[in-house]
Amino acid sequence: MSSIGVLFRIVTFGESHGVAIGVVVDGVPAGVAVSEEDVRRELNRRRFCHIPVLNPRCEDEEFQILSGIKDGFTEGTPIAIVIWNKRAISDYYQELWMKPRPNHADLAWYLKFGRFYDHRGGGRSSGRETAARIAAGAIAKAVLRQTIGVEVSSHLVELGGVSISRDDYTFEDVVKAWEKPLPMIDDEAVKGAVDLLIKTATEGDSVGGIGEVLTTEVPPGLGEPVFDKLKADLAKAVFSIGTVVGVEFGLGFRLARMRGSEANDQIVLRGGRPRLETNRVGGLLGGMSVGEPIRFRVAFKPTPSIRKPQRTVDLSKMEETTIVFKGRYDVSTAPKALVAAEAMTAIVLVDHAMRAGLIPRVVKK
Amino acid sequence: MSSIGVLFRIVTFGESHGVAIGVVVDGVPAGVAVSEEDVRRELNRRRFCHIPVLNPRCEDEEFQILSGIKDGFTEGTPIAIVIWNKRAISDYYQELWMKPRPNHADLAWYLKFGRFYDHRGGGRSSGRETAARIAAGAIAKAVLRQTIGVEVSSHLVELGGVSISRDDYTFEDVVKAWEKPLPMIDDEAVKGAVDLLIKTATEGDSVGGIGEVLTTEVPPGLGEPVFDKLKADLAKAVFSIGTVVGVEFGLGFRLARMRGSEANDQIVLRGGRPRLETNRVGGLLGGMSVGEPIRFRVAFKPTPSIRKPQRTVDLSKMEETTIVFKGRYDVSTAPKALVAAEAMTAIVLVDHAMRAGLIPRVVKK
Amino acid sequence: MSSIGVLFRIVTFGESHGVAIGVVVDGVPAGVAVSEEDVRRELNRRRFCHIPVLNPRCEDEEFQILSGIKDGFTEGTPIAIVIWNKRAISDYYQELWMKPRPNHADLAWYLKFGRFYDHRGGGRSSGRETAARIAAGAIAKAVLRQTIGVEVSSHLVELGGVSISRDDYTFEDVVKAWEKPLPMIDDEAVKGAVDLLIKTATEGDSVGGIGEVLTTEVPPGLGEPVFDKLKADLAKAVFSIGTVVGVEFGLGFRLARMRGSEANDQIVLRGGRPRLETNRVGGLLGGMSVGEPIRFRVAFKPTPSIRKPQRTVDLSKMEETTIVFKGRYDVSTAPKALVAAEAMTAIVLVDHAMRAGLIPRVVKK
Amino acid sequence: MSSIGVLFRIVTFGESHGVAIGVVVDGVPAGVAVSEEDVRRELNRRRFCHIPVLNPRCEDEEFQILSGIKDGFTEGTPIAIVIWNKRAISDYYQELWMKPRPNHADLAWYLKFGRFYDHRGGGRSSGRETAARIAAGAIAKAVLRQTIGVEVSSHLVELGGVSISRDDYTFEDVVKAWEKPLPMIDDEAVKGAVDLLIKTATEGDSVGGIGEVLTTEVPPGLGEPVFDKLKADLAKAVFSIGTVVGVEFGLGFRLARMRGSEANDQIVLRGGRPRLETNRVGGLLGGMSVGEPIRFRVAFKPTPSIRKPQRTVDLSKMEETTIVFKGRYDVSTAPKALVAAEAMTAIVLVDHAMRAGLIPRVVKK
Repeated sequence: MSSIGVLFRIVTFGESHGVAIGVVVDGVPAGVAVSEEDVRRELNRRRFCHIPVLNPRCEDEEFQILSGIKDGFTEGTPIAIVIWNKRAISDYYQELWMKPRPNHADLAWYLKFGRFYDHRGGGRSSGRETAARIAAGAIAKAVLRQTIGVEVSSHLVELGGVSISRDDYTFEDVVKAWEKPLPMIDDEAVKGAVDLLIKTATEGDSVGGIGEVLTTEVPPGLGEPVFDKLKADLAKAVFSIGTVVGVEFGLGFRLARMRGSEANDQIVLRGGRPRLETNRVGGLLGGMSVGEPIRFRVAFKPTPSIRKPQRTVDLSKMEETTIVFKGRYDVSTAPKALVAAEAMTAIVLVDHAMRAGLIPRVVKK
Repeated sequence: MSSIGVLFRIVTFGESHGVAIGVVVDGVPAGVAVSEEDVRRELNRRRFCHIPVLNPRCEDEEFQILSGIKDGFTEGTPIAIVIWNKRAISDYYQELWMKPRPNHADLAWYLKFGRFYDHRGGGRSSGRETAARIAAGAIAKAVLRQTIGVEVSSHLVELGGVSISRDDYTFEDVVKAWEKPLPMIDDEAVKGAVDLLIKTATEGDSVGGIGEVLTTEVPPGLGEPVFDKLKADLAKAVFSIGTVVGVEFGLGFRLARMRGSEANDQIVLRGGRPRLETNRVGGLLGGMSVGEPIRFRVAFKPTPSIRKPQRTVDLSKMEETTIVFKGRYDVSTAPKALVAAEAMTAIVLVDHAMRAGLIPRVVKK
Repeated sequence: MSSIGVLFRIVTFGESHGVAIGVVVDGVPAGVAVSEEDVRRELNRRRFCHIPVLNPRCEDEEFQILSGIKDGFTEGTPIAIVIWNKRAISDYYQELWMKPRPNHADLAWYLKFGRFYDHRGGGRSSGRETAARIAAGAIAKAVLRQTIGVEVSSHLVELGGVSISRDDYTFEDVVKAWEKPLPMIDDEAVKGAVDLLIKTATEGDSVGGIGEVLTTEVPPGLGEPVFDKLKADLAKAVFSIGTVVGVEFGLGFRLARMRGSEANDQIVLRGGRPRLETNRVGGLLGGMSVGEPIRFRVAFKPTPSIRKPQRTVDLSKMEETTIVFKGRYDVSTAPKALVAAEAMTAIVLVDHAMRAGLIPRVVKK
Repeated sequence: MSSIGVLFRIVTFGESHGVAIGVVVDGVPAGVAVSEEDVRRELNRRRFCHIPVLNPRCEDEEFQILSGIKDGFTEGTPIAIVIWNKRAISDYYQELWMKPRPNHADLAWYLKFGRFYDHRGGGRSSGRETAARIAAGAIAKAVLRQTIGVEVSSHLVELGGVSISRDDYTFEDVVKAWEKPLPMIDDEAVKGAVDLLIKTATEGDSVGGIGEVLTTEVPPGLGEPVFDKLKADLAKAVFSIGTVVGVEFGLGFRLARMRGSEANDQIVLRGGRPRLETNRVGGLLGGMSVGEPIRFRVAFKPTPSIRKPQRTVDLSKMEETTIVFKGRYDVSTAPKALVAAEAMTAIVLVDHAMRAGLIPRVVKK
């Protein structure tokens, strides 16, 4: 289904080459200041027009807020946002009809929906769908900021194998990384990654990457035992992004190789409250927030569509064939998907803060 | 909340040192053959009594099926299973009152529920809660087997840093690994891991591990775009287990370092249907099953409770203190948690097969 | 929240005097033929322009389908429909600011959302919101017709106290009643009711009514024990319409005054299957369908807004005051609300038919 | 499915003649004082042993609270309650196998679940299932009382056609009515109804009735626009009780026959806040609470099982036959069902008060 969340819930709609995509955000508390500019700013973060191989089309998003906001404040009613599609060029998709691209959602959609799949631009499985999530994320971020004072950001720790070289960054470092061509905290990594992207594009190939989502300190109590743990709902939300193949909290897989005496974050008294001395665990215990920043890493697979010949099956004839993708493609979807992961994080945090009773239904009376 | 699932839904209840734990399985199709023996067999898989450091208490589970089964077949009504708690020794928990164990859920529970937290044995945050999931998983496995013919298994690929050395195992190899002391496909790894567990216990420390859950071929169409992708719901279900800190599908984080041309599974025609030649992606495209086995890895952190002095805060006095855990503990929770991960996988697969219309409400008329 | 349904789910959005209202229909099976004309036809049924006191404004609805339909067939993805608002005259609402109209949702909204309530035209509590439900109902009706072959209709049995005089009508009689000025099966009642509406409007007053929703034979098995009974979900869906104050299935309150021997529908063999001889119960037993038509009645309260002076409290000053509504109003909302009740019925039936496994995810391959 | 509620959620299980029935109450706030006595008191209200024709068996309920309560206070974890079945005499059900009783859920269950239906005592469709709801209702009532200070009660306004003769009763009158043989506010009605019950039993017949559920003043803001209106969720919860065939809020169907000028409750200033002068609407506007008591009426159909010959179909042979019910039956299920309706009301109110943010997750720190 196309909806997620319990008290703060979004539903997205729209196909890549259809009339529009969009989102309805339900359960928004009343009295939160939200502007079109908030939405536009987040949508712009996924454009990366300065690196053309990441976004060959590079168009402005034209969107419209249809409901739920009066005089600059949320009304407590659903906010519907439509993002119009434009100038979609579907021609080169004609020859891909019934020929699923390897590693792409195409195959799953053909097997599930048959000839009703709108394969143009990947239809509903397109990364474009995440623009609707990001618009909703802008609302979620406004709610978080104006209620529990939490900020969410993200950065790339690795792109196509080019890694950042430092481990000692702060939340502010990460926020500032967005002023660079790529959101990496380390200038050398940025340069290496940009070069790699251009080189890879020249070769008609693609790369994946690893991102990290971080928050400022999250008040204790978010997350519900036992199934709706915050880590469980964050993981679900982030894994619902097409390109995500792995999620780890804190040191993640590295924790699995440590002993308890190495892994355990000692609990100390700081500022009059219990704190984790090291926060190796990523800010969640028992799946719930404990007043620490939350931190998790996300693995993005390389873009499936490449300009090299690939083997597939023509499902209309049930015979093997070869395809070469000729449409516009992003040499890596990791940067855009990272923005989507950040948006999903904000959405889940609002939902859980509401469930924990930390966000009132009306923010200012 | 303590429930998960849409059409096939479980709710668990119970505290570690309370009267009982248990589960209600709702949405079970009618006409599935289920016996007490099915439940007992799965519960036994998590006992590991032959490796005492993994289960110092080693007791039989006494359980009772209260409803939903008539003459050996499910009725289509909720199946309630109670697992009685017995001989819980809560004494050594008295001195831990208000002193959260580092890396344990204790801190989160104290911060969220205050003095109402039943900290004895970890209360509801105890790994014991997963026994209820495993009982439900036994029902789910019977449903899968008798409807869409899917089997689920799992194994450890790494325990305390001791890894298996082969990569070319089959589903059957994995199933057979459960006849060994530890479910690892590689005898040398088993020996190394058992030795390590004993040594670690001697030192009063603990270790984590990495498991892998696998299925036989899953029919296409499980998983709902865009938020209820099968990978998203599997990740949520598995991350809802306390000790899990990472999940990756197929090659996971390794995919993030590959190029598209290396990562993409070519689509080939085998047995008259499209197949993934390599299944590096773990059996899901667009988050949906495509007729391939599903495969994902899970990182388990080391057991928080260790016999070494650890720093914490006495929340009743808000002052720093040191604790040494004196109760019984499992030197690694990874093996038990792996069985729980397998159970959660079966539960999610039934739910999604029902949502996809692949399991009728009445299995045999 | 603004969403309803489990597998077939709608979310509505929009305020009466905002940019637009609309709906996203999620969980639609693929392969159902749906056209704009289907939606327009249902939207027109609630216009009643030929009786101006029922719809003083009488405008065409301008709507747009944004997603989910390709080449005339549903894709299995969310269908978003936007209905644009136009020429809303909000002037006369200025003097009603903070002065809730008696019997209107105004008071509840002011108490819950304070100054963030968009009171113009009743904002989101307006009957206009039901247009979005009716658009979704058009989709639901297409699904029902093309899968389980069920039709849904409705009629008024009473308007402002003017009742139909017959009890022996068929489903076809009810369908044909929609060709009359008011959907009543009895010409005399139509005339009496129209006269009454005009007279009541002259007096600046309003009237309520009682409608009945009927279906053709519904296949057995819709409805889930014990809480998601079909009658429970139908009642919820219909009571979610603002003006509804009562619902009764079959003979309803009259059954409560009968003895078992009078009330019980004898079970007889007709056409090779068990049938209810009399269907006094309205087609549901144990809250589930049994192969009979479903029938229930709905009580609509009179329109709250009238042209007579009414007492209220100015919430900005917390003092008593008197208001006279000067805006356009419908002398009875019952006819429009009846169309909404019919739409909600279709929506619930699709959801339950999907839950019962009677509607595949792809209707035609 | 057998669960209901969003934040405060119950799941019931168990068949009438199985091992046990029971309930898991999930989402209970921590810190609420709850005792076994609270549960027993509510269970006793549905016994009516002093009127043997209402409960021929008249046994004490043996129940056990398995989890969620520590030292007399809720822990914030699921409360599981098991009510053991005993001495069930299933013999006379043998001859009813595959012969559905007219007006009973039997037919629906046979059509949906076939031979897997446990028809003994009505299996899961038995009124006995409501005992589990009533146990959960006891928890809900404790929560309401200790948080928002709301009480819920109910009474019969009509039984078998014998009506109460007054209209001017208070909440206290209704509470006191439970000290009488039947919960009717009017002694003459009690006498008439008891006589009627005995006479009807002699004749082997049954009667229905009409009940009313009332609350003390409910704080404003319960109920979510637009689908989860409080009236919608109350109606669903009450209609989920097998015997319910009608629900009306306030004056209900009588409102449908009034003009706006007669029906509208004028809004007046009392005690410094806006109040409804007459509360004809039953305490809800726009489906939300406005600080008034809530009031709705419920129609219960007569008990289907009677000692008169009734026609049915033997589904195993598909031929018509006649049955006479020989088991124990309640001459009217209305009194017991009324207690269940009251319990469901309390459950829905807690859920909505939590959703509205009026009940914290921890009641006392």
